[in-house]
Amino acid sequence: MKNQILELLKNKDYISIKRIFDDINEVDIAETLEELDKNKLLIVFRLLQKDKAVEVFTYLTTVKQEEIVVSATDKEIKHLVNELYFDDMIDLLEEIPANIVKRILSNVKEEERELVNQFLNYPEYSAGSLMTIEYVDLKRNITVKEALEGIRKTGIEKETIYTCYIIDANRRLEGIVSLRELVINNEDNKIEDIMTQDFIYVNTLDDQEEIAQKFKKYDLLAIPVVDKENRLVGIITFDDIMDVIDEENTEDFYKMAAMTPTDDEYLNSNTLQLAKHRVIWLLFLMVSATFTGYIIKNFENALSSVIVLAMFIPLLMDTGGNAGAQSATLIIRGLALDTVKVKDYFKVIMKELRVSIIVGTMLGSINFVRIMIFDKVEYKIALTVSITLFLTIIIAKVVGGILPLLARKFKLDPAIMASPLITTIVDALALVIYFSLATTILGL
Amino acid sequence: MKNQILELLKNKDYISIKRIFDDINEVDIAETLEELDKNKLLIVFRLLQKDKAVEVFTYLTTVKQEEIVVSATDKEIKHLVNELYFDDMIDLLEEIPANIVKRILSNVKEEERELVNQFLNYPEYSAGSLMTIEYVDLKRNITVKEALEGIRKTGIEKETIYTCYIIDANRRLEGIVSLRELVINNEDNKIEDIMTQDFIYVNTLDDQEEIAQKFKKYDLLAIPVVDKENRLVGIITFDDIMDVIDEENTEDFYKMAAMTPTDDEYLNSNTLQLAKHRVIWLLFLMVSATFTGYIIKNFENALSSVIVLAMFIPLLMDTGGNAGAQSATLIIRGLALDTVKVKDYFKVIMKELRVSIIVGTMLGSINFVRIMIFDKVEYKIALTVSITLFLTIIIAKVVGGILPLLARKFKLDPAIMASPLITTIVDALALVIYFSLATTILGL
Repeated sequence: MKNQILELLKNKDYISIKRIFDDINEVDIAETLEELDKNKLLIVFRLLQKDKAVEVFTYLTTVKQEEIVVSATDKEIKHLVNELYFDDMIDLLEEIPANIVKRILSNVKEEERELVNQFLNYPEYSAGSLMTIEYVDLKRNITVKEALEGIRKTGIEKETIYTCYIIDANRRLEGIVSLRELVINNEDNKIEDIMTQDFIYVNTLDDQEEIAQKFKKYDLLAIPVVDKENRLVGIITFDDIMDVIDEENTEDFYKMAAMTPTDDEYLNSNTLQLAKHRVIWLLFLMVSATFTGYIIKNFENALSSVIVLAMFIPLLMDTGGNAGAQSATLIIRGLALDTVKVKDYFKVIMKELRVSIIVGTMLGSINFVRIMIFDKVEYKIALTVSITLFLTIIIAKVVGGILPLLARKFKLDPAIMASPLITTIVDALALVIYFSLATTILGL
Repeated sequence: MKNQILELLKNKDYISIKRIFDDINEVDIAETLEELDKNKLLIVFRLLQKDKAVEVFTYLTTVKQEEIVVSATDKEIKHLVNELYFDDMIDLLEEIPANIVKRILSNVKEEERELVNQFLNYPEYSAGSLMTIEYVDLKRNITVKEALEGIRKTGIEKETIYTCYIIDANRRLEGIVSLRELVINNEDNKIEDIMTQDFIYVNTLDDQEEIAQKFKKYDLLAIPVVDKENRLVGIITFDDIMDVIDEENTEDFYKMAAMTPTDDEYLNSNTLQLAKHRVIWLLFLMVSATFTGYIIKNFENALSSVIVLAMFIPLLMDTGGNAGAQSATLIIRGLALDTVKVKDYFKVIMKELRVSIIVGTMLGSINFVRIMIFDKVEYKIALTVSITLFLTIIIAKVVGGILPLLARKFKLDPAIMASPLITTIVDALALVIYFSLATTILGL
């Protein structure tokens, strides 16, 4: 597709480009535009049918959106601003440089400008920063027929019409009704008789992770957002929540790999940003690993009299770290999906104990046999290594299982208790056990 | 809530329980039932209003669903089977023991039984196993008014009415139309004039991960599923896709922590299952770590003449592993979200090189200074350790960045190239560099 468009651009065959894009989904158009350089992007974007252009715009990355806005005429910006859904406009304003924000705001209708500024002030990741104002509101005493007629007239400008919100004279939210119920019910029924009053809602300052949990738990299409006085101020739709779910998972992945979380896409991040997000944790973990080193130094005499002991250090450290990471990941994920709770700590400990005894016994025995066959060391060394392995796996799994629960208990993010941190802790414990056992069993 | 219900149960105050549950959302009822033991669960479940009971049932875990079905009368099963959405019934049948499946199937209407068996045969994680048959289909030559009348009559039994499917006489899918368009358009318009023909669809055997990608990319509420002849056989709705997104993320988390992925919830899994999912990868990685051990053995002479070298092994191994895990996680996540592609490999290598030179220089210098101040070893050792650290970080980051891309290229899951595997590879390389440098610099 990209090559076809480039070819047509070279021949200035703009009519064919127009015709091609008329038949194509706006998401796919955006994907093609994403690959064009700035000048070509602008030419093609201006060829799009006006309303479709706005939809395509919402699917572009910020980088490309900015390129378009910077070069757009005031007339084009006015059209864009009028046609964008409110939440998409806020997203745009949050991402672009201040001088362009100013230019866009000067094209926003005066009565809306205050609202824009209010929305820009909601904290990042809050319900306020996710919501949009294009929803259908109804009064409780109208009939289904009147409601449907109202929706027919204004529905085209709403982000969703599938959930409608019933508000009183002070805009306080009284109930919700789905378009499905409106369509299925008798035309003469009153809205107040068919609306649901035990609806799910969120407050403007609620965190996006909680909101995503509610969407998943209650299978919602949209959720109303109310202020402190219970007045309806906006709604959040499921498509934005799908993005939130991805963001929250990415955050966990990054934290679990010892990185500062960020929303920036990898290929669009510059080297210094990337380095900054990684170096702090690496430094912290490096210093922690130094202490593990001091344990070895402490047993220098034992080590130098049986130098072959050093050979098994990687095996003990790696297996301990991996065993702990497995347990930690299971618990961190269980906490994120709400299938494991802090109060389950006793069940977790018992489960990890039982699992680790089985796993430890298997790996310990296999290891003993392997050392005896291949490594030609005396059986006492094989025994030392295998018992250490067995104990390390048990400790790693219990520590790995319990640390994320402790983190949640103390209102920290369980994801920071993942592999890197647990590896560091388990490494130290494994080496203490190893050298203590060695000195005893080998009589050093 | 749970305690209140238990109290009422003890007093046999069933009327109050009924009244409480009348006002509560089915998701929250299910959450409460989840905590009751089998006998109490059955009593309370039977107190629920019949239609609500079916909805509550779909939100219960398989364990509880099974407890109910096992003790239900034939009449109760018949009601359940008639009222459950088709995809929920298939989910149930896939999870419960064969003898109960038989009993349920004997209560399914004969004409549906063949369909059930067909659906049970779709591979797990395919579109076929996710779809439901309760959708709205329309003919192209009817009017909007006729369509809305049809929906009014049958809509209550459909899983969604917000997207309607236009099929020809052979059930081939010709277009889709949203309820929004039906409501907004003129009543006399023909469906064929307002339907979308460049709709997004999937095939019965498509993998759920691909389907989730399409939902996210195109912001879909539902997607049609067609067979090889392009006939519409079912639809998949967004709420099931939200679960798929969680499942796919969990799978990645598990693989990245060296575990066999599973859908089973942690607390509901028994010890042997858990041990099985963990021991295979641990064993594989343990054997790999043995080779790292042989590297140390190979340099036994160097090590025994300068025993203090052993002290820095944990620092080098841990930092290398962590640095590699960071890069691997970024790329694995980028591939999963489609923001990094295999063809970007050159950009990835260059980015990781630049980042690792910065990070490596910082950590290497800090480490050199720290060793000189605290460890009282000769500067040549500090130099050896710090250069090794610098080189290890560069190798770790480039290897960590490139292996997930290679995995994707060769149609493997990038997630297996995560921390544990990369740690093992990087450990070995780090030690080879370390001891080679040591023998040169220290002249061993």
